[in-house]
Amino acid sequence: MKLVRYGRPGKEKPGLIDEEGKLRDLSGVIADIDATQLSDKALRKLGKIEESTLPLVRGNPRFGVPLARVGKFIGIGLNYADHAAEAGLPAPAEPIVFMKAVSCLNGPDDAVMLPKGSKKTDWEVELGVVIGSRARYVSEADALSFVAGYCVVNDLSERSFQLERGPQWDKGKGCDTFGPVGPWLVTRDEVYDVQRLDLYLELNGKRMQTGSTETMIFSVAQIVSYVSQFMTLEPGDIIATGTPPGVGAGRKPQRFLKKGDSLRLGIAGLGEQQQDVIAYQAV
Amino acid sequence: MKLVRYGRPGKEKPGLIDEEGKLRDLSGVIADIDATQLSDKALRKLGKIEESTLPLVRGNPRFGVPLARVGKFIGIGLNYADHAAEAGLPAPAEPIVFMKAVSCLNGPDDAVMLPKGSKKTDWEVELGVVIGSRARYVSEADALSFVAGYCVVNDLSERSFQLERGPQWDKGKGCDTFGPVGPWLVTRDEVYDVQRLDLYLELNGKRMQTGSTETMIFSVAQIVSYVSQFMTLEPGDIIATGTPPGVGAGRKPQRFLKKGDSLRLGIAGLGEQQQDVIAYQAV
Repeated sequence: MKLVRYGRPGKEKPGLIDEEGKLRDLSGVIADIDATQLSDKALRKLGKIEESTLPLVRGNPRFGVPLARVGKFIGIGLNYADHAAEAGLPAPAEPIVFMKAVSCLNGPDDAVMLPKGSKKTDWEVELGVVIGSRARYVSEADALSFVAGYCVVNDLSERSFQLERGPQWDKGKGCDTFGPVGPWLVTRDEVYDVQRLDLYLELNGKRMQTGSTETMIFSVAQIVSYVSQFMTLEPGDIIATGTPPGVGAGRKPQRFLKKGDSLRLGIAGLGEQQQDVIAYQAV
Repeated sequence: MKLVRYGRPGKEKPGLIDEEGKLRDLSGVIADIDATQLSDKALRKLGKIEESTLPLVRGNPRFGVPLARVGKFIGIGLNYADHAAEAGLPAPAEPIVFMKAVSCLNGPDDAVMLPKGSKKTDWEVELGVVIGSRARYVSEADALSFVAGYCVVNDLSERSFQLERGPQWDKGKGCDTFGPVGPWLVTRDEVYDVQRLDLYLELNGKRMQTGSTETMIFSVAQIVSYVSQFMTLEPGDIIATGTPPGVGAGRKPQRFLKKGDSLRLGIAGLGEQQQDVIAYQAV
Protein backbone atom coordinates (compact mmCIF):
# COMPACT_ATOMS: atom_id res chain seq x y z
CA MET A 1 0.00 0.00 0.00
CA LYS A 2 0.90 3.61 -0.52
CA LEU A 3 -0.50 5.38 2.52
CA VAL A 4 -0.83 9.16 2.61
CA ARG A 5 -2.23 11.96 4.71
CA TYR A 6 -3.81 14.76 2.70
CA GLY A 7 -5.36 18.13 3.42
CA ARG A 8 -4.46 21.34 5.19
CA PRO A 9 -1.59 21.36 7.74
CA GLY A 10 -2.83 19.96 11.03
CA LYS A 11 -6.12 18.84 9.43
CA GLU A 12 -4.84 15.97 7.31
CA LYS A 13 -7.03 12.97 6.58
CA PRO A 14 -5.77 9.45 5.94
CA GLY A 15 -5.81 8.11 2.43
CA LEU A 16 -4.14 5.76 0.01
CA ILE A 17 -2.95 5.84 -3.57
CA ASP A 18 -4.72 3.11 -5.53
CA GLU A 19 -3.28 0.92 -8.27
CA GLU A 20 -4.20 3.51 -10.88
CA GLY A 21 -2.39 6.21 -8.93
CA LYS A 22 -5.59 7.83 -7.71
CA LEU A 23 -6.05 9.22 -4.22
CA ARG A 24 -8.77 7.54 -2.15
CA ASP A 25 -10.00 8.55 1.27
CA LEU A 26 -9.51 6.28 4.29
CA SER A 27 -11.15 8.48 6.91
CA GLY A 28 -14.25 6.26 6.93
CA VAL A 29 -12.04 3.33 7.96
CA ILE A 30 -9.38 4.76 10.31
CA ALA A 31 -9.12 8.07 12.17
CA ASP A 32 -5.53 8.69 11.13
CA ILE A 33 -2.30 6.96 10.12
CA ASP A 34 -0.23 6.73 13.28
CA ALA A 35 1.57 4.26 15.53
CA THR A 36 -1.63 2.27 16.10
CA GLN A 37 -1.96 1.52 12.36
CA LEU A 38 1.60 0.46 11.61
CA SER A 39 1.85 -3.07 12.99
CA ASP A 40 1.85 -5.98 10.56
CA LYS A 41 -1.61 -6.93 11.84
CA ALA A 42 -3.10 -3.46 11.39
CA LEU A 43 -1.53 -3.10 7.95
CA ARG A 44 -2.84 -6.52 6.88
CA LYS A 45 -6.32 -5.44 7.92
CA LEU A 46 -6.02 -2.23 5.90
CA GLY A 47 -4.66 -4.21 2.99
CA LYS A 48 -7.82 -6.33 2.84
CA ILE A 49 -10.00 -3.36 1.98
CA GLU A 50 -11.28 -3.38 -1.57
CA GLU A 51 -9.76 -0.16 -2.87
CA SER A 52 -12.63 0.51 -5.28
CA THR A 53 -15.00 0.86 -2.31
CA LEU A 54 -13.08 3.85 -0.94
CA PRO A 55 -14.20 7.34 -2.02
CA LEU A 56 -12.05 9.00 -4.67
CA VAL A 57 -10.68 12.40 -3.62
CA ARG A 58 -11.09 15.17 -6.18
CA GLY A 59 -8.59 17.84 -7.03
CA ASN A 60 -4.97 17.93 -6.00
CA PRO A 61 -4.86 18.32 -2.26
CA ARG A 62 -1.67 18.99 -0.36
CA PHE A 63 0.11 15.98 1.13
CA GLY A 64 1.28 16.03 4.74
CA VAL A 65 3.78 13.79 6.49
CA PRO A 66 2.27 10.32 5.82
CA LEU A 67 2.12 9.42 9.52
CA ALA A 68 1.01 11.43 12.52
CA ARG A 69 2.56 11.76 15.97
CA VAL A 70 6.11 10.73 15.11
CA GLY A 71 7.92 9.97 18.35
CA LYS A 72 11.58 10.04 17.33
CA PHE A 73 13.15 11.32 14.13
CA ILE A 74 16.57 9.70 14.01
CA GLY A 75 19.33 10.41 11.50
CA ILE A 76 22.31 8.34 10.38
CA GLY A 77 25.39 10.26 9.28
CA LEU A 78 27.82 9.55 6.46
CA ASN A 79 26.30 6.23 5.42
CA TYR A 80 27.12 6.08 1.71
CA ALA A 81 30.58 4.95 0.64
CA ASP A 82 30.61 7.27 -2.40
CA HIS A 83 29.45 10.22 -0.26
CA ALA A 84 32.19 9.57 2.33
CA ALA A 85 34.75 9.44 -0.49
CA GLU A 86 33.41 12.72 -1.93
CA ALA A 87 33.69 14.33 1.51
CA GLY A 88 37.25 13.04 1.82
CA LEU A 89 36.30 11.28 5.06
CA PRO A 90 36.94 7.68 6.08
CA ALA A 91 33.88 5.45 6.27
CA PRO A 92 32.68 5.37 9.90
CA ALA A 93 33.46 2.21 11.87
CA GLU A 94 29.89 2.08 13.15
CA PRO A 95 26.75 4.10 12.35
CA ILE A 96 26.74 7.76 13.41
CA VAL A 97 23.43 8.46 15.15
CA PHE A 98 21.90 11.91 15.60
CA MET A 99 18.39 13.25 16.15
CA LYS A 100 16.21 15.64 14.20
CA ALA A 101 13.70 17.66 16.22
CA VAL A 102 10.17 16.38 15.53
CA SER A 103 9.09 20.02 15.20
CA CYS A 104 10.96 20.14 11.86
CA LEU A 105 8.63 17.61 10.19
CA ASN A 106 7.12 19.04 7.02
CA GLY A 107 4.89 17.96 4.17
CA PRO A 108 6.77 16.71 1.10
CA ASP A 109 5.83 19.69 -1.07
CA ASP A 110 5.64 22.40 1.60
CA ALA A 111 8.05 25.31 1.33
CA VAL A 112 11.43 24.98 3.04
CA MET A 113 12.38 28.03 5.11
CA LEU A 114 15.93 29.27 5.49
CA PRO A 115 16.53 29.81 9.21
CA LYS A 116 17.41 33.36 10.23
CA GLY A 117 21.14 33.89 9.77
CA SER A 118 21.50 30.80 7.59
CA LYS A 119 24.33 30.85 5.09
CA LYS A 120 24.79 27.11 4.54
CA THR A 121 21.44 25.35 4.27
CA ASP A 122 21.98 22.12 2.35
CA TRP A 123 19.90 19.28 0.91
CA GLU A 124 20.14 15.52 1.52
CA VAL A 125 17.82 13.05 -0.21
CA GLU A 126 17.47 9.99 2.04
CA LEU A 127 15.58 6.76 2.42
CA GLY A 128 13.29 7.02 5.46
CA VAL A 129 12.47 3.90 7.45
CA VAL A 130 9.21 3.91 9.42
CA ILE A 131 9.13 1.62 12.44
CA GLY A 132 6.00 -0.54 12.69
CA SER A 133 6.47 -2.43 15.94
CA ARG A 134 8.58 -1.96 19.05
CA ALA A 135 12.21 -2.93 18.43
CA ARG A 136 14.70 -3.49 21.27
CA TYR A 137 17.98 -5.33 20.83
CA VAL A 138 16.76 -6.88 17.60
CA SER A 139 19.08 -8.93 15.42
CA GLU A 140 20.05 -7.92 11.91
CA ALA A 141 18.25 -11.01 10.61
CA ASP A 142 14.97 -9.98 12.24
CA ALA A 143 15.31 -6.21 11.89
CA LEU A 144 13.23 -5.64 8.74
CA SER A 145 10.22 -7.36 10.29
CA PHE A 146 9.95 -4.37 12.66
CA VAL A 147 9.67 -1.96 9.74
CA ALA A 148 6.23 -0.77 8.60
CA GLY A 149 7.48 0.81 5.40
CA TYR A 150 9.61 3.34 3.62
CA CYS A 151 9.40 6.95 2.50
CA VAL A 152 11.40 9.79 0.99
CA VAL A 153 13.05 12.18 3.47
CA ASN A 154 14.91 15.41 2.76
CA ASP A 155 17.36 15.66 5.68
CA LEU A 156 17.89 19.41 5.34
CA SER A 157 20.93 20.62 7.27
CA GLU A 158 22.37 24.01 8.08
CA ARG A 159 26.08 23.22 7.83
CA SER A 160 27.35 26.15 9.88
CA PHE A 161 24.88 25.41 12.69
CA GLN A 162 25.70 21.70 12.42
CA LEU A 163 29.47 21.85 12.19
CA GLU A 164 30.73 25.26 13.30
CA ARG A 165 28.63 25.91 16.43
CA GLY A 166 29.87 23.21 18.80
CA PRO A 167 30.53 19.49 18.67
CA GLN A 168 26.94 18.27 18.28
CA TRP A 169 25.07 18.21 14.96
CA ASP A 170 21.48 18.42 16.25
CA LYS A 171 21.55 22.24 16.20
CA GLY A 172 21.74 22.25 12.41
CA LYS A 173 19.40 19.34 11.73
CA GLY A 174 16.10 20.29 13.35
CA CYS A 175 15.32 23.83 12.15
CA ASP A 176 11.67 24.40 11.24
CA THR A 177 10.72 22.76 7.89
CA PHE A 178 14.02 20.79 7.78
CA GLY A 179 12.20 17.43 7.70
CA PRO A 180 10.03 16.95 4.61
CA VAL A 181 8.70 13.37 4.67
CA GLY A 182 6.56 11.63 2.07
CA PRO A 183 4.47 11.85 -0.07
CA TRP A 184 3.84 8.15 0.52
CA LEU A 185 4.47 5.66 3.26
CA VAL A 186 5.05 2.59 1.12
CA THR A 187 4.50 -0.58 3.09
CA ARG A 188 7.39 -3.02 3.37
CA ASP A 189 5.71 -5.68 1.23
CA GLU A 190 5.81 -3.36 -1.81
CA VAL A 191 9.57 -2.79 -1.65
CA TYR A 192 11.20 -5.76 -3.26
CA ASP A 193 14.80 -5.00 -2.27
CA VAL A 194 15.42 -1.99 -0.06
CA GLN A 195 19.14 -2.16 -0.86
CA ARG A 196 18.52 -1.54 -4.57
CA LEU A 197 16.62 1.72 -4.66
CA ASP A 198 17.70 4.65 -6.82
CA LEU A 199 17.68 8.12 -5.22
CA TYR A 200 17.93 11.50 -6.92
CA LEU A 201 17.74 15.20 -6.16
CA GLU A 202 17.54 18.17 -8.52
CA LEU A 203 18.13 21.83 -7.71
CA ASN A 204 16.37 24.22 -10.09
CA GLY A 205 16.03 21.38 -12.61
CA LYS A 206 19.71 20.39 -12.48
CA ARG A 207 20.68 16.99 -11.13
CA MET A 208 22.70 17.26 -7.92
CA GLN A 209 22.42 13.86 -6.25
CA THR A 210 22.32 10.47 -7.92
CA GLY A 211 22.70 7.37 -5.81
CA SER A 212 21.54 3.94 -4.91
CA THR A 213 20.94 2.30 -1.55
CA GLU A 214 23.35 -0.35 -2.88
CA THR A 215 26.26 1.82 -1.75
CA MET A 216 25.10 2.19 1.85
CA ILE A 217 27.90 1.39 4.28
CA PHE A 218 25.40 0.03 6.81
CA SER A 219 22.28 -1.63 5.40
CA VAL A 220 18.78 -0.78 6.59
CA ALA A 221 18.70 -4.04 8.56
CA GLN A 222 22.04 -3.25 10.18
CA ILE A 223 20.88 0.28 11.07
CA VAL A 224 17.59 -0.84 12.66
CA SER A 225 19.41 -3.54 14.63
CA TYR A 226 22.19 -1.15 15.65
CA VAL A 227 20.00 1.74 16.81
CA SER A 228 17.85 -0.72 18.79
CA GLN A 229 20.91 -1.48 20.95
CA PHE A 230 20.93 2.14 22.17
CA MET A 231 17.27 3.05 22.41
CA THR A 232 13.93 1.35 21.95
CA LEU A 233 12.46 2.01 18.54
CA GLU A 234 8.72 2.63 18.80
CA PRO A 235 6.01 2.39 16.14
CA GLY A 236 5.94 5.70 14.29
CA ASP A 237 9.62 6.47 14.75
CA ILE A 238 11.41 7.46 11.53
CA ILE A 239 15.06 6.79 10.70
CA ALA A 240 16.66 8.81 7.89
CA THR A 241 19.41 6.53 6.66
CA GLY A 242 22.01 8.87 5.20
CA THR A 243 22.55 10.57 1.87
CA PRO A 244 24.36 9.65 -1.37
CA PRO A 245 26.92 12.01 -3.00
CA GLY A 246 26.11 15.45 -4.34
CA VAL A 247 25.23 17.63 -1.37
CA GLY A 248 25.97 21.34 -1.61
CA ALA A 249 28.79 21.22 0.94
CA GLY A 250 30.57 18.59 -1.17
CA ARG A 251 30.53 20.57 -4.42
CA LYS A 252 33.38 22.69 -5.74
CA PRO A 253 32.58 25.48 -5.32
CA GLN A 254 30.12 24.81 -2.53
CA ARG A 255 26.50 25.65 -3.29
CA PHE A 256 23.93 26.29 -0.58
CA LEU A 257 20.22 27.03 -0.78
CA LYS A 258 18.93 30.51 -1.54
CA LYS A 259 15.52 32.04 -1.50
CA GLY A 260 13.80 31.22 -4.79
CA ASP A 261 15.54 27.89 -5.28
CA SER A 262 13.46 24.83 -6.02
CA LEU A 263 14.19 21.21 -5.05
CA ARG A 264 12.83 18.05 -6.60
CA LEU A 265 13.83 14.72 -5.06
CA GLY A 266 12.66 11.19 -4.96
CA ILE A 267 13.31 7.49 -4.64
CA ALA A 268 12.23 4.85 -7.16
CA GLY A 269 8.83 3.51 -6.08
CA LEU A 270 8.50 5.85 -3.10
CA GLY A 271 7.35 9.01 -4.87
CA GLU A 272 8.72 12.49 -5.32
CA GLN A 273 8.94 15.69 -3.27
CA GLN A 274 9.07 19.26 -4.56
CA GLN A 275 10.04 22.20 -2.34
CA ASP A 276 10.34 25.92 -2.90
CA VAL A 277 12.95 27.62 -0.74
CA ILE A 278 11.75 30.75 1.04
CA ALA A 279 13.01 33.16 3.68
CA TYR A 280 12.05 32.48 7.28
CA GLN A 281 8.55 33.53 8.15
CA ALA A 282 6.40 32.99 11.20
CA VAL A 283 3.75 30.37 10.50
CA MET B 1 1.32 24.73 41.75
CA LYS B 2 3.06 21.41 42.00
CA LEU B 3 1.52 19.31 39.25
CA VAL B 4 2.00 15.55 39.16
CA ARG B 5 0.86 12.47 37.31
CA TYR B 6 0.32 9.43 39.51
CA GLY B 7 -0.56 5.79 39.06
CA ARG B 8 0.67 2.81 37.08
CA PRO B 9 2.93 3.36 34.05
CA GLY B 10 0.82 4.38 31.08
CA LYS B 11 -2.26 4.79 33.28
CA GLU B 12 -1.25 7.94 35.17
CA LYS B 13 -3.89 10.42 36.37
CA PRO B 14 -3.32 14.15 36.82
CA GLY B 15 -2.98 15.51 40.32
CA LEU B 16 -1.41 18.22 42.42
CA ILE B 17 0.41 18.48 45.70
CA ASP B 18 -1.51 20.81 47.99
CA GLU B 19 -0.09 23.31 50.47
CA GLU B 20 0.10 20.63 53.13
CA GLY B 21 2.04 18.33 50.85
CA LYS B 22 -0.90 16.04 50.22
CA LEU B 23 -1.71 14.52 46.84
CA ARG B 24 -5.05 15.53 45.35
CA ASP B 25 -6.67 14.22 42.21
CA LEU B 26 -7.25 16.47 39.20
CA SER B 27 -8.85 13.92 36.90
CA GLY B 28 -12.31 15.40 37.50
CA VAL B 29 -11.01 18.71 36.15
CA ILE B 30 -8.61 17.84 33.32
CA ALA B 31 -8.00 14.65 31.38
CA ASP B 32 -4.22 14.82 31.70
CA ILE B 33 -1.31 17.22 32.11
CA ASP B 34 0.01 17.82 28.64
CA ALA B 35 0.77 20.57 26.12
CA THR B 36 -2.82 21.80 26.22
CA GLN B 37 -2.59 22.56 29.95
CA LEU B 38 0.74 24.37 30.04
CA SER B 39 -0.05 27.84 28.69
CA ASP B 40 -0.22 30.73 31.15
CA LYS B 41 -3.97 30.89 30.56
CA ALA B 42 -4.57 27.20 31.22
CA LEU B 43 -2.34 27.26 34.31
CA ARG B 44 -4.12 30.34 35.66
CA LYS B 45 -7.41 28.50 35.27
CA LEU B 46 -6.07 25.47 37.13
CA GLY B 47 -4.64 27.78 39.79
CA LYS B 48 -8.09 29.15 40.57
CA ILE B 49 -9.37 25.80 41.73
CA GLU B 50 -9.93 25.65 45.47
CA GLU B 51 -7.52 22.83 46.42
CA SER B 52 -9.67 21.62 49.29
CA THR B 53 -12.44 20.71 46.84
CA LEU B 54 -10.21 18.18 45.07
CA PRO B 55 -10.33 14.56 46.26
CA LEU B 56 -7.41 13.46 48.42
CA VAL B 57 -5.56 10.43 47.06
CA ARG B 58 -4.89 7.69 49.60
CA GLY B 59 -1.73 5.66 49.95
CA ASN B 60 1.56 6.32 48.23
CA PRO B 61 1.03 5.86 44.53
CA ARG B 62 3.85 5.82 42.04
CA PHE B 63 4.64 9.12 40.29
CA GLY B 64 5.09 9.24 36.55
CA VAL B 65 6.66 11.93 34.38
CA PRO B 66 4.60 15.01 35.40
CA LEU B 67 3.57 15.78 31.83
CA ALA B 68 2.36 13.51 29.04
CA ARG B 69 3.27 13.46 25.36
CA VAL B 70 6.61 15.24 25.56
CA GLY B 71 7.57 16.31 22.04
CA LYS B 72 11.28 17.02 22.35
CA PHE B 73 13.67 16.19 25.16
CA ILE B 74 16.62 18.51 24.66
CA GLY B 75 19.89 18.47 26.58
CA ILE B 76 22.50 21.16 27.17
CA GLY B 77 26.08 19.95 27.64
CA LEU B 78 28.78 21.23 29.98
CA ASN B 79 26.80 24.18 31.35
CA TYR B 80 28.27 24.58 34.84
CA ALA B 81 31.55 26.46 35.25
CA ASP B 82 32.64 24.26 38.17
CA HIS B 83 31.75 21.08 36.23
CA ALA B 84 33.75 22.25 33.20
CA ALA B 85 36.70 23.00 35.48
CA GLU B 86 36.39 19.53 37.08
CA ALA B 87 36.34 17.93 33.64
CA GLY B 88 39.43 19.94 32.66
CA LEU B 89 37.55 21.38 29.70
CA PRO B 90 37.20 24.99 28.63
CA ALA B 91 33.75 26.52 29.08
CA PRO B 92 31.90 26.28 25.75
CA ALA B 93 31.60 29.49 23.75
CA GLU B 94 27.91 28.84 23.18
CA PRO B 95 25.48 26.20 24.50
CA ILE B 96 26.06 22.61 23.38
CA VAL B 97 22.71 21.17 22.28
CA PHE B 98 21.91 17.47 22.05
CA MET B 99 18.73 15.39 22.16
CA LYS B 100 17.53 12.64 24.44
CA ALA B 101 15.17 10.07 22.88
CA VAL B 102 11.64 10.59 24.26
CA SER B 103 11.46 6.80 24.70
CA CYS B 104 13.89 7.16 27.64
CA LEU B 105 11.43 9.16 29.76
CA ASN B 106 10.89 7.50 33.13
CA GLY B 107 9.07 8.15 36.38
CA PRO B 108 11.19 9.85 39.07
CA ASP B 109 11.33 6.77 41.31
CA ASP B 110 11.23 4.04 38.67
CA ALA B 111 14.21 1.71 38.41
CA VAL B 112 17.05 2.72 36.10
CA MET B 113 18.24 -0.08 33.83
CA LEU B 114 21.83 -0.55 32.76
CA PRO B 115 21.81 -1.03 28.98
CA LYS B 116 23.23 -4.31 27.74
CA GLY B 117 27.00 -4.04 27.48
CA SER B 118 27.07 -0.90 29.61
CA LYS B 119 30.29 -0.29 31.53
CA LYS B 120 30.04 3.47 32.07
CA THR B 121 26.49 4.47 33.02
CA ASP B 122 26.68 7.79 34.86
CA TRP B 123 24.33 10.15 36.74
CA GLU B 124 23.63 13.87 36.16
CA VAL B 125 21.21 15.82 38.32
CA GLU B 126 19.78 18.68 36.26
CA LEU B 127 17.22 21.43 36.30
CA GLY B 128 14.51 20.61 33.75
CA VAL B 129 12.68 23.43 31.99
CA VAL B 130 9.19 22.67 30.67
CA ILE B 131 8.04 24.84 27.78
CA GLY B 132 4.54 26.28 28.18
CA SER B 133 3.96 28.15 24.94
CA ARG B 134 5.50 28.09 21.48
CA ALA B 135 8.89 29.81 21.41
CA ARG B 136 10.60 30.85 18.18
CA TYR B 137 13.45 33.36 18.01
CA VAL B 138 12.55 34.67 21.45
CA SER B 139 14.77 37.22 23.19
CA GLU B 140 16.56 36.50 26.43
CA ALA B 141 14.42 39.17 28.12
CA ASP B 142 11.19 37.42 27.11
CA ALA B 143 12.39 33.82 27.33
CA LEU B 144 11.11 32.88 30.79
CA SER B 145 7.57 33.88 29.88
CA PHE B 146 7.52 30.86 27.53
CA VAL B 147 8.32 28.50 30.40
CA ALA B 148 5.47 26.63 32.16
CA GLY B 149 7.62 25.44 35.03
CA TYR B 150 10.55 23.45 36.32
CA CYS B 151 11.33 19.91 37.40
CA VAL B 152 14.15 17.60 38.43
CA VAL B 153 15.77 15.55 35.64
CA ASN B 154 18.38 12.83 35.91
CA ASP B 155 20.22 13.04 32.58
CA LEU B 156 21.62 9.50 32.74
CA SER B 157 24.41 8.94 30.24
CA GLU B 158 26.37 5.92 29.11
CA ARG B 159 29.80 7.50 28.67
CA SER B 160 31.28 4.85 26.38
CA PHE B 161 28.22 4.98 24.09
CA GLN B 162 28.25 8.79 24.27
CA LEU B 163 31.95 9.47 23.79
CA GLU B 164 33.67 6.39 22.38
CA ARG B 165 31.23 5.23 19.70
CA GLY B 166 31.38 8.07 17.17
CA PRO B 167 31.23 11.84 17.25
CA GLN B 168 27.61 12.28 18.36
CA TRP B 169 26.43 11.99 21.98
CA ASP B 170 22.78 11.01 21.39
CA LYS B 171 23.69 7.30 21.34
CA GLY B 172 24.57 7.40 25.03
CA LYS B 173 21.83 9.76 26.19
CA GLY B 174 18.57 8.08 25.19
CA CYS B 175 18.82 4.49 26.45
CA ASP B 176 15.61 3.17 28.03
CA THR B 177 14.98 4.64 31.53
CA PHE B 178 17.74 7.27 31.05
CA GLY B 179 15.28 10.15 31.53
CA PRO B 180 13.69 10.24 35.01
CA VAL B 181 11.62 13.44 35.26
CA GLY B 182 9.69 14.73 38.28
CA PRO B 183 8.14 14.13 40.75
CA TRP B 184 6.62 17.58 40.35
CA LEU B 185 6.20 20.08 37.58
CA VAL B 186 6.48 23.26 39.65
CA THR B 187 4.92 26.20 37.88
CA ARG B 188 7.09 29.20 37.10
CA ASP B 189 5.32 31.50 39.58
CA GLU B 190 6.49 29.30 42.48
CA VAL B 191 10.18 29.56 41.62
CA TYR B 192 11.43 32.86 42.95
CA ASP B 193 14.85 32.83 41.29
CA VAL B 194 15.65 29.99 38.92
CA GLN B 195 19.34 30.96 39.01
CA ARG B 196 19.58 30.31 42.76
CA LEU B 197 18.50 26.72 43.14
CA ASP B 198 20.56 24.13 45.00
CA LEU B 199 20.97 20.70 43.37
CA TYR B 200 22.25 17.48 44.92
CA LEU B 201 22.72 13.82 44.15
CA GLU B 202 23.62 10.93 46.45
CA LEU B 203 24.83 7.47 45.47
CA ASN B 204 24.10 4.80 48.09
CA GLY B 205 23.64 7.54 50.70
CA LYS B 206 26.92 9.30 49.87
CA ARG B 207 26.85 12.81 48.46
CA MET B 208 28.25 12.91 44.90
CA GLN B 209 26.93 16.13 43.38
CA THR B 210 26.43 19.47 45.11
CA GLY B 211 25.74 22.52 43.03
CA SER B 212 23.72 25.60 42.42
CA THR B 213 22.16 27.00 39.27
CA GLU B 214 24.15 30.15 40.16
CA THR B 215 27.20 28.61 38.46
CA MET B 216 25.47 27.92 35.17
CA ILE B 217 27.52 29.27 32.26
CA PHE B 218 24.36 30.00 30.28
CA SER B 219 21.28 30.96 32.27
CA VAL B 220 17.88 29.39 31.74
CA ALA B 221 16.73 32.51 29.90
CA GLN B 222 19.81 32.41 27.66
CA ILE B 223 19.28 28.70 26.93
CA VAL B 224 15.60 29.05 26.01
CA SER B 225 16.38 32.03 23.79
CA TYR B 226 19.37 30.27 22.23
CA VAL B 227 17.66 26.97 21.44
CA SER B 228 14.70 28.86 19.95
CA GLN B 229 17.07 30.22 17.27
CA PHE B 230 17.63 26.67 15.98
CA MET B 231 14.27 24.98 16.45
CA THR B 232 10.79 25.93 17.55
CA LEU B 233 10.17 25.03 21.17
CA GLU B 234 6.68 23.64 21.60
CA PRO B 235 4.52 23.33 24.73
CA GLY B 236 5.52 20.13 26.49
CA ASP B 237 9.13 20.15 25.32
CA ILE B 238 11.65 19.64 28.12
CA ILE B 239 15.17 21.09 28.25
CA ALA B 240 17.66 19.53 30.68
CA THR B 241 20.04 22.39 31.41
CA GLY B 242 23.31 20.68 32.30
CA THR B 243 24.82 19.21 35.44
CA PRO B 244 26.97 20.55 38.30
CA PRO B 245 30.24 18.84 39.39
CA GLY B 246 30.45 15.33 40.78
CA VAL B 247 29.51 12.95 37.97
CA GLY B 248 31.07 9.49 38.00
CA ALA B 249 33.26 10.16 34.97
CA GLY B 250 34.81 13.16 36.75
CA ARG B 251 35.82 11.27 39.90
CA LYS B 252 39.26 9.84 40.62
CA PRO B 253 38.99 6.95 40.31
CA GLN B 254 35.97 7.02 38.04
CA ARG B 255 32.84 5.42 39.46
CA PHE B 256 30.00 4.18 37.27
CA LEU B 257 26.64 2.68 38.16
CA LYS B 258 26.32 -0.98 39.06
CA LYS B 259 23.34 -3.23 39.64
CA GLY B 260 22.16 -2.72 43.22
CA ASP B 261 23.19 0.95 43.42
CA SER B 262 20.67 3.49 44.62
CA LEU B 263 20.40 7.16 43.61
CA ARG B 264 18.70 9.99 45.44
CA LEU B 265 18.68 13.41 43.83
CA GLY B 266 16.76 16.63 44.00
CA ILE B 267 16.55 20.37 43.65
CA ALA B 268 15.42 22.77 46.37
CA GLY B 269 11.67 23.33 45.98
CA LEU B 270 11.30 20.91 43.07
CA GLY B 271 11.20 17.62 44.96
CA GLU B 272 13.33 14.51 45.07
CA GLN B 273 13.86 11.39 42.97
CA GLN B 274 15.00 7.95 44.12
CA GLN B 275 16.14 5.26 41.71
CA ASP B 276 17.34 1.69 42.12
CA VAL B 277 19.80 0.56 39.48
CA ILE B 278 18.99 -2.80 37.90
CA ALA B 279 20.22 -4.94 35.02
CA TYR B 280 18.49 -4.56 31.68
CA GLN B 281 15.19 -6.36 31.46
CA ALA B 282 12.44 -6.36 28.88
CA VAL B 283 9.47 -4.34 30.13
